[in-house]
Order: sequence, then C-alpha cells, then structure tokens
Amino acid sequence: MTTAAKRLSALRADMAALGLDGLLVPRADAFLGEYVPPSAERLAWLTGFTGSAGLALVLRDRAILFVDGRYTTQAAAEVEGGLWELRHLLEQPPAEFLGAECAGARIGYDPWLHPAAAVERFVASGARLVPLPANPVDAVWSDRPAPPSAPALPHPPAFAGLDGAAKREAAAAQLRAAGQDAAVLADPHSVAWLLNIRGSDLGHTPLTLAMALLHADGRVDLFLDPARADAALRAHLGNAVALHPPAALPAVLQGLAGQRVRLDADVTPAWFGQALRAAGAEAVAGEDPCRLPRACKNAVEQQGARAAHLRDAVALCRFLAWFAQAAPMGRETELSAAAKLLALRAEGADFVAESFPAISGAGEHGAIIHYRATPASDRPIRPDECYLIDSGAQYRDGTTDVTRTLWTGPGDPPAELAERYTMVLQGHLALSALRFPEGVAGPHLDSLARRPLWAAGLDYDHGTGHGVGSFLSVHEGPAGISRAARPVPLKPGMILSNEPGFYLPGAYGIRIENLLLVRPAAGLPGQTKPFLDFETLTFAPYERRLIAPPRLTAAERAQIDAYHAACLDRIGPLLPADAAAWLREACAPL
Amino acid sequence: MTTAAKRLSALRADMAALGLDGLLVPRADAFLGEYVPPSAERLAWLTGFTGSAGLALVLRDRAILFVDGRYTTQAAAEVEGGLWELRHLLEQPPAEFLGAECAGARIGYDPWLHPAAAVERFVASGARLVPLPANPVDAVWSDRPAPPSAPALPHPPAFAGLDGAAKREAAAAQLRAAGQDAAVLADPHSVAWLLNIRGSDLGHTPLTLAMALLHADGRVDLFLDPARADAALRAHLGNAVALHPPAALPAVLQGLAGQRVRLDADVTPAWFGQALRAAGAEAVAGEDPCRLPRACKNAVEQQGARAAHLRDAVALCRFLAWFAQAAPMGRETELSAAAKLLALRAEGADFVAESFPAISGAGEHGAIIHYRATPASDRPIRPDECYLIDSGAQYRDGTTDVTRTLWTGPGDPPAELAERYTMVLQGHLALSALRFPEGVAGPHLDSLARRPLWAAGLDYDHGTGHGVGSFLSVHEGPAGISRAARPVPLKPGMILSNEPGFYLPGAYGIRIENLLLVRPAAGLPGQTKPFLDFETLTFAPYERRLIAPPRLTAAERAQIDAYHAACLDRIGPLLPADAAAWLREACAPL
Repeated sequence: MTTAAKRLSALRADMAALGLDGLLVPRADAFLGEYVPPSAERLAWLTGFTGSAGLALVLRDRAILFVDGRYTTQAAAEVEGGLWELRHLLEQPPAEFLGAECAGARIGYDPWLHPAAAVERFVASGARLVPLPANPVDAVWSDRPAPPSAPALPHPPAFAGLDGAAKREAAAAQLRAAGQDAAVLADPHSVAWLLNIRGSDLGHTPLTLAMALLHADGRVDLFLDPARADAALRAHLGNAVALHPPAALPAVLQGLAGQRVRLDADVTPAWFGQALRAAGAEAVAGEDPCRLPRACKNAVEQQGARAAHLRDAVALCRFLAWFAQAAPMGRETELSAAAKLLALRAEGADFVAESFPAISGAGEHGAIIHYRATPASDRPIRPDECYLIDSGAQYRDGTTDVTRTLWTGPGDPPAELAERYTMVLQGHLALSALRFPEGVAGPHLDSLARRPLWAAGLDYDHGTGHGVGSFLSVHEGPAGISRAARPVPLKPGMILSNEPGFYLPGAYGIRIENLLLVRPAAGLPGQTKPFLDFETLTFAPYERRLIAPPRLTAAERAQIDAYHAACLDRIGPLLPADAAAWLREACAPL
Repeated sequence: MTTAAKRLSALRADMAALGLDGLLVPRADAFLGEYVPPSAERLAWLTGFTGSAGLALVLRDRAILFVDGRYTTQAAAEVEGGLWELRHLLEQPPAEFLGAECAGARIGYDPWLHPAAAVERFVASGARLVPLPANPVDAVWSDRPAPPSAPALPHPPAFAGLDGAAKREAAAAQLRAAGQDAAVLADPHSVAWLLNIRGSDLGHTPLTLAMALLHADGRVDLFLDPARADAALRAHLGNAVALHPPAALPAVLQGLAGQRVRLDADVTPAWFGQALRAAGAEAVAGEDPCRLPRACKNAVEQQGARAAHLRDAVALCRFLAWFAQAAPMGRETELSAAAKLLALRAEGADFVAESFPAISGAGEHGAIIHYRATPASDRPIRPDECYLIDSGAQYRDGTTDVTRTLWTGPGDPPAELAERYTMVLQGHLALSALRFPEGVAGPHLDSLARRPLWAAGLDYDHGTGHGVGSFLSVHEGPAGISRAARPVPLKPGMILSNEPGFYLPGAYGIRIENLLLVRPAAGLPGQTKPFLDFETLTFAPYERRLIAPPRLTAAERAQIDAYHAACLDRIGPLLPADAAAWLREACAPL
C-alpha cells in the first residue's frame, strides 16, 4: 500500500466512525487566503497535489480532486491516478457534482475552512452537509508540522501613516452608522492593517495569522497566542485591544448575544455565522469594514510605495543590465537568473522577502501563466529567445510586483513576436495614460488594455490588473482591473497592477507589468467633475528590441520616450556605472 | 379649489375610508414598460406631471412627487407647488423616504403597478405596505379614457423569421431544463415576440398590451380581450394558444397549485408572486425565457433590419440635404424640421410610426438630453449654431434610431465645438470598429467610447448604447453598453445603439448615433477563439463641417472615409438627384 493509499484509508476509517458518506477537504485554512502555512496543507498531505487552489471530496469508494485549468497537468502528475479522479473545478463545480452524485448523502465539512457563501452552494445541492466539530484529517495526520509561532511585530507609524486608534475609530464609526454592534474580522490582512501589526507566518506575505472582533465603540478583541505578543507589541496595541488565545473565540462570541454583528460572507468561515446564531446574536451581511480603507493607501503609505519602488527599480535595472550581458552567452538558467534578481533585491534597504515566488520562464515556459521553475523544470535561457520574469518584493514600506519580457539576443527577434509584444505594450500604455471620472471601476477598464490584441484576433486568459497591499498581500481586493472583478469604483490611493500579456503555448509568453497608483487628476479646461488618473510606480525600461515602432502612433511613441526618460532620470543616478551605462542606452528615445 | 387640489382631496377621502396613511402612485401600468396608454396615466392625472418616470406618495397631510434629474425642471413647472413637494428619485429613493418619515405607517399600493423587487425595498423600509385589491385612483378618476381596444395583428413569418410554434417549443425547453412547469410572461414584448403578434396600444411601440403563461409543454394561456382577436389572429395563434379575458388570470393561476412557476422579478408585477403563493404554487425567480432569444435577432429579422435601415437612410439623407439648404436661412423651427423628417420617413414602405418622439433641439436645447420640442418651447433653428436630431421609426421589418448633430452654417463652427464633436466621433468610431471575444458584455465596452472625451476631462451623463427590438421597443434589454447595464455577454444578432455625446448646458449638445448589429467576426491568423464585431446598420454621413481632421489618426480618417463611401454607395442610388448631389459632397473623402 502506498503512503497516499494509507492516508486515504485512515481517513475513510475515521469518516465511517463519524457516520459520514463523504468529506470535503479544501486547500484552505481558517484564514481563507491565497497562501497557507505547512500546518494547514491538508489537501497536499492527503492527495499530493501542491497547487494553490483545489478541493477534494472523499467518498466511501471514490475520491475526487477538483482543480482549475491552471493545475490540471500538475495535478495529474502529482496525485496517484488509481486513488483520485480529477475534475475541473469550474466546468463541474463541486456543488454541482454533489447535486448530481451525492443527493441525500451525509457529507462532512470543517466549517472553519469554507466561506459561508460556499457552504450555501453545497447545501443547495441536495446533499446533507454536516459541519464537523474537528477536522478528521488532523486526527490521522501524525507528522503534522507545528503551526506558525513567530512573534507578531508592530508596523510603525512611519510606514503605516495612521495609528491603530485612528483606524479603529474610523472603522467603528462605519459600524455605528450601520446600526451594528460589532464586526468579525476573519481576514488576517484586515487585522494586520487595523492594528498595524505584521508577522512572518507565510513566506511571501508579512502576516500574523490572527482574527479579531471589532466593536462599535472601537475596542478590539484580538485572537492570538499570547506567547506571540511581547511587551513591545502589547504596548503598541494599547489598552483598547484585548488579547485572547484563539481557543477563547467561541466563549467571546457567546458574549455577543442580542447584538448585531457584521460578517463578510466572502472572507469569513461559515463557522462564524453558525456560532453567532447559536449564541443568540444577529449575523448581518456586510463588507469587512477594513477592506476599502486598507486598499486606499494614505499619504505615508503612498510615499513608502514610491520609495520601495525606487529601490526595487535599482535592483531590477541592475538585473536587466547584467542579463543583457549574460543572456546571449546562454550560461544562465531560469533558476539562476531568478536567484540573481533576488540577491540584488536583498541588497536594498528594508527588504524582507519576495512578494511571491518569481515566475522566471524562458521560451515556451513563458507561455505558462503561473509557471514556477523547479530544479526539475529548470532550463537554460538560450540566445535568441524570449524570457519572461514576473517578480516582486516585500519591503517594510511597500510591496512591489513587476514583469518584463526580454529578448536574449544577440540576433533580432522575429517580426511576428515584435508585433505582438508591441500590441501588448500598446494596451499597457493605453491603461497607464488613462484619465477617467470618479465612479469608474476596474471591469470597465479591462477592455482598454486588450483592444490592440483584440484587433488582431488575440487575447490573454487572465485579468489585466489586481490590487496590491502596503507591505501586505501582493493580491489585494476589493478592486481589480478584470471583467471578473466586482465593479468597485477606483479611488485615490489604490495600487493596481497593469499587466496585459500574450501567450503562444509551446513557444513564448509576453507580459508587461507596472504598478499604478490611483490619484486625483489635474483639472482641465471645461471639466465639470472630478477625474482620476494613474501615477506609475514602477521604473524599468521596456524591451526596445521587441518594440515595432511602425505600429506605434506618435502619441504612443512619445509616451514610451517620456517613461524611459523618467526611468533614466530617477534610477540612473542610483546605479553603479556599468548598469547606468546600460540604462542610458535602454532609455534612449525610440 | 383647483382641479388638482380636488383630485388630491378626493383621493385622500378614499384613503381614509380604506384606513390608509399613505398611497403610492407610480408612473406605470401593469406592463411596467417605458410607455403607458392614456388610460394608465394615473400619475399625470393626479399630479399634472407628464414625464416618463416618477412616483407619487400621497400622505394625509403631505404629497411628495419623486422624479429623476431629467425631470426636475419639468416637474416644477407642471405640478402645483402648494400641493406637491418635489424630491429626487435617485438621491433620496422613495424606500429611504418611507424608512425615514413613514415608519409604521400603513402605505397602500397597487401590486399590479410595481415589480416585486421594488415592493421588497418598500417593505424593508419599515413602513407597513398594504397591497390593495383595486387602485383608489380609478375610483375617483371619473373621466378616465378607455383602455386600448385595437385588434392584435399577426406579425408574419416574412418579418418574424420563426413561427410561433418553434419559438414556444424553444422557450418551453428552457423551462423543462430548469425543472419548471410554467413561466409568467408579464412583459408584453415577450408575448409579442413569442406569439408573433403586434398591435397599436402605444404610440411608438407596436405592442398589444397582453400577458401570458407559458407551460413547459409549449402551450400558452394568452390573456387578451377576445374582442381584440379576430378569426385571422386566432388561426395565426393556433390551437396551442388558449385565449382568456384578462379578468380570468387569477382563476387560471389557481390552477397552478403545486407547480413550479418562473417569475422574472424585474419585469413582473408583485401581484403575481402574491397570487401564486396564495394559489399554492411555488414561485421561482428566473429570467423571462423570451428575453435573451428576443434580443438575438434571427437571420430574417437581421435582413429586415438592414432593409428598414436603408429606407430610413433614404429619408434621413433627403432630410439632411433639405436641411443643408434650409438651415442657413433660419426659417425652420425645431418642430417644423422634425415634421419634415417624419413626412419623409412616412413615404417609406412599411412605415408605421416614429419609434419615439423625435428629439429636435437647436442650440441650447440640444444640451437637454431628453428634450422634446412643444409648441411652447419650439424655437427657430438659427444660422451658425448646432442642431441635434435624434429620431427613429418603426417599420414592419425593423426599428431604427439615429442621431446626427449638424452645423447650420453658413459660417464655420468655433474651433472648440469642432474639437468636441471630433472627440465624440472618435469614441463612436472606436466602438464601431471594435473586435472582441465572446463573453464580453456592454459594461466592458462603454469606456472605449468615452476615452477621447475623458482625455480632455469631459464626459456625458448617459449610457453609450441600448438594445433595440425588431419592430418592437426602441429600448430593449437585456444587453446595453453602459456601466449601469447588467453584464450580459453580447451575442450575434443583438442590435445596439452607439451614441456617445457631449453637452454644454445653455449652449449646445452633440450626439452621434448609429445602430450596430453584433455578428461573428471573420477569423484572423493566430486567432484561437471566436470573436465578434459590429455591422453598422445606419447610413448617413457625419457632419464634416464639425470634424477637426488634425485630431484624427490615419486609421480614424480611413474609417470615416470608408463609412462615407458605403453611405454613398448604398444610399446614393436610392435618392432623388438633388439629394444625391448633396450626398456626394457630404461623403467626399476628408
């Protein structure tokens, strides 16, 4: 019997003891985020599948793993085919499968690991969903890693801009205006933002995984192992923040009997609604009160983002200068190049970590949108091909995310490749230069970045942009520049990526990404209402060898030249001589 | 006592007899459409306000009229200030007002005149909403006009493309697939489309105001005064369509006990849900099954639209040629010009009526987006000013809607005006020429038409485009090119308007409108999924005296020249000699 078979068999024995016909195992912990610590990798432990999204349904005699299109190939390689059936997470969603194949069956789930909205869909399917008091996987996972235990750290006002008391008061005022007594803050990003704390529980997001309750009078109950809060942190939190061990959460909720408590169904485990109703409190649907203020960076956070982006640009331009020398010789690989960039970034002040595992893809690997080079997949970066590097960093004053697509040389690129790079660049430029009135949301702007590709019958299968946190997650809601995003009006202080692309499977990938800061636009004659535009935070030249100037309008050419002049002006003086010399050439007018 | 005061007083006496603290009187009939017949103009009878949207709330000692921004000036002029307070329909919606000022009050409403979604908002406000068995206005409206009684007429297959049996079967299949037994068709556009009937109950939309029930086996119960259905119509409807007088509707619903019945909350009066639940049927929310198929015109309807637009273009080009001669002399007025255009249209085959009251606005009147010239407001069209004419027609084979903005001459327009006309035109051209993949919806495209204006800090306060019916309503859902529209993916066969504008209050209005037919786009090299584009249905030259060529890109100039060449090619041969000569000049390359 394989290890995987033993694990599945042990789990089924537990299910039988609990009288269950099935069990749901999502790739999630109670914080419902993009990343989970090793102690919460239940899905990977059970199935072998290590992707960032998926759901297992273990039945008595079948086991199904649902993954999305990004992961079908990877899942097939990672799981044992004799044990697991693979299904497409979106083409046949688990709720539909439950309805079709499990009507009336008793399906257990851990109410901490699913948002309420997802549980509602499961319940509507016709299966009998059974919330479990403990997760059956944990009972059979004997070598489970310990949960994160690093101390939580203050995020000082010099980076945060506003102190915790001011933030708590503003968030509490939202509750009072809505006639609510409290709000569950289940999203640790909200807790981190509200209380100005950061941590190291995850590799790429500087979070302490903690939940909190915000009261309408501005008090906060913070659920965090007291051993993780030293005296300095307690002083930083102040008297209005009461510290409780996470196990005290149910008892504290009991105290909310008769109160109106706001829950954000998108980011809050189903457990909370069940527990609040059991406690005699009224659960009211509403947006996490920290979500929008967190997205709208204040002046200090904006200044931090600018400073962090300058340091990041120094590292990236040094990397690009090095790459221009190294690439045509063909001695570097995807992993060695990514390591070089990381090492350059690590020299910068206040560098903490990469903001996500760098996507370093040569040639055909560039066409895999979420490619991650591993020792097994790593390959040389060869002369005369495309190389895509999408990477970013967490600095204490800001989070970066930038993509450049490079031509290794020494020869010239094929005309078709340059045409397509230029179309992607035209879309990127159109969005960067946009002025738009208040009230416009990301889904309304996505098409502007696609139009040059669309005109040629081409497109890319991902959104154009995502929100970015301030020394927080590199993927942050609520706004996004994507047809799938909620139509949340863009507001000054939001930071969004602008990253159109084009991918030819098996051949190459093109993506060009800068981060943009939404700001009030300067007024123009005849203007009768407020307009917004974007300040570009990222400074690194586009790949001029891939630009086909005849395709460009005069305005586009001027926009590129102006951006390159700004790169040279701001980053040139911060570079060593050889990199500065390279930058001067890279930024010469087209 | 004025007439208005007497009416209000009589209504309040009735309210008191019914034990009501208040009464809601919307500008709506049971068909919830944009236009109502004179017999349903209760709001106008009661208040004097004749706009196309509004709601009165009559309380014991106050009476409030809610109207939107289009109608604030008009309402103030039309209603008696001593009797009525005016409120903004959107800034303080009636439900909010009820919550703030009428908590606990007994507010009567006619459940036939409000969609279920609106009643839910009223109920949530905290007032006690009382559905009434009869409308109290009718009891005091002694000289109420008779309801429409004209015969319903067959819409023959030569125009409809599909016969009623085929449509009924396809719609019924939708119900079976959803496990539903029947659907309420409360929208008379759906009844007209499904059964291929038209009528003359409204001035501008060729409707017979009738409701129906569609059963999952394809049978239909049609609620229409049998006196309005002659033998030919009955033969056209066939045996699967049972005719009932409208008063039989409650009894027929009683027969649905135990069945699952689909209701579209957006287009169905609240009465239906209440009646179905009382009858022991299950009311299931779902889209009107005719709404999407009606929007996607079949090949015959598309061919009809093209033919109707050619005849419409002949009338419009004759008008434009006439206008070019007449306007500089200053002898025409807004009303005389609109009458001239109507007379020219009426010469066309299969002309039935205008598709809406023409918007004929000279100078500052052009800036009033929904301007309607009346004998009181009519004014001369003067030399050297802007003139906006937005009009359309109902032909038996198709519905048209077109706007042109003209410079009367003989002098040249101010440079600023020409610049702004050109920006509007650039947005209009960008949308017309767009290629886009399947799945894209109208809200994703609206920004493309605004970008040239946005770049100058300008905008327009209306959507860019609306759906258009096939010898049906000139405003048809579900798709629209507007940020406020539902994100319904555009599909081949949909007809949408493309009408960006710019308005300088007190000075001039610019709007340029063509109708577009969504079609599959021709494939391009490298294309890997289906794309759509637009076929332009409208043929009439843009106002070349208002185009500022230096602002145009080479591609835009080529697009204008190609469109003008198509206008000349298609319409020129259909015109009398003098108009043809004018068209040749108007369509010369820029």
